[in-house]
Amino acid sequence: MSSTGGLFITLEGGEGAGKSTAAAGLAARLRAEGQEVLLTREPGGTKGAEAIRGVLLDQDLPLDPLAQTMLHFAARADHVAHSIRPALARGATVICDRFYDSTMAYQSYGQGVALADVRALIRLIGLTPDITFLLELPEEDARRRLAARARGTDRYEEMGEAFFTRVQKGFAAMAAAEPGRFVKIDASPPPGLVVDALCQALRGRTGRR
Amino acid sequence: MSSTGGLFITLEGGEGAGKSTAAAGLAARLRAEGQEVLLTREPGGTKGAEAIRGVLLDQDLPLDPLAQTMLHFAARADHVAHSIRPALARGATVICDRFYDSTMAYQSYGQGVALADVRALIRLIGLTPDITFLLELPEEDARRRLAARARGTDRYEEMGEAFFTRVQKGFAAMAAAEPGRFVKIDASPPPGLVVDALCQALRGRTGRR
Repeated sequence: MSSTGGLFITLEGGEGAGKSTAAAGLAARLRAEGQEVLLTREPGGTKGAEAIRGVLLDQDLPLDPLAQTMLHFAARADHVAHSIRPALARGATVICDRFYDSTMAYQSYGQGVALADVRALIRLIGLTPDITFLLELPEEDARRRLAARARGTDRYEEMGEAFFTRVQKGFAAMAAAEPGRFVKIDASPPPGLVVDALCQALRGRTGRR
Repeated sequence: MSSTGGLFITLEGGEGAGKSTAAAGLAARLRAEGQEVLLTREPGGTKGAEAIRGVLLDQDLPLDPLAQTMLHFAARADHVAHSIRPALARGATVICDRFYDSTMAYQSYGQGVALADVRALIRLIGLTPDITFLLELPEEDARRRLAARARGTDRYEEMGEAFFTRVQKGFAAMAAAEPGRFVKIDASPPPGLVVDALCQALRGRTGRR
């Protein structure tokens, strides 16, 4: 339990790892147990944050990497103040698809923004997840899953393989640095089995059966 | 001269103090002397920053004050990286209508965001103006000038008198804390005389005649 009340769970990982599907599956299981669950995602989650998401995903805007980083945190500040904190305060479990670890992975490890700059912004947000699931998938599998999605690419999906390798290494380094918060999950099995693994890890961490 | 090359001048003050007119007048004088001048304003100044300005000025988005603060700094990071730093690097004088002091005045003194949070964001930007002109106008005069402008109000123009009093006090406190950077200018006289005062103060600071 976070100091603010309910449990704050985040899901992290590269594109195509199945975070959204796993987050929805976990939310359904917890709701079936009678818990109030806020299922949300970043960037976005509030009206203001969604407006900022629109700026972030607009490929025609040549945004400086530090500006992108600050935009992610601006959206996050609104999301935390207007959605996540109120939910935690009333005791709900919050499941968030991406949080500040994604900014660290994509903007620092991926684009070269100083780690210290992102850490300074994390301090301003002042909210740490209780548990962060890192969904891991071999690169070939992720590429195959992404290719199967019939939709346009955004700013990050066009950045190439070397970029995504740096992002993956970043996530791995962050998980190694905070073993008390991160739980690595093998994202290769079918969705139902991934959700089983999330539930089992969650019970292990929270002591609930 | 800033460490980056050209001189970086900012104009600050409340609504209706005549910053834009004074900035344009100062730019014209310096250009007449043969200087290359970049005349710009915040929030905005680049394509990315103008897109962020659109989010900031949209009154229908209920943005958390820390989110607003970070949005201002995101726009600023892009403005600095893509416009201000390149101009200073080639030796141009940059005149910017509002810079980070406005965020400190409006978001910290006006809306209660922690001063330490804004200072942390200023450190991430890493660029300090060489000279900051604080245009001061008695509140009644500012109100009269604003009433004479036939245009819609934005997020800040609707916040009421107590808010603007806090903003004014903030600017005064900041000028008192950094007397080596701030120059207070009486904004009551006609525009031409205000520009005279700016030029005179500039010559005094830079040693140019």
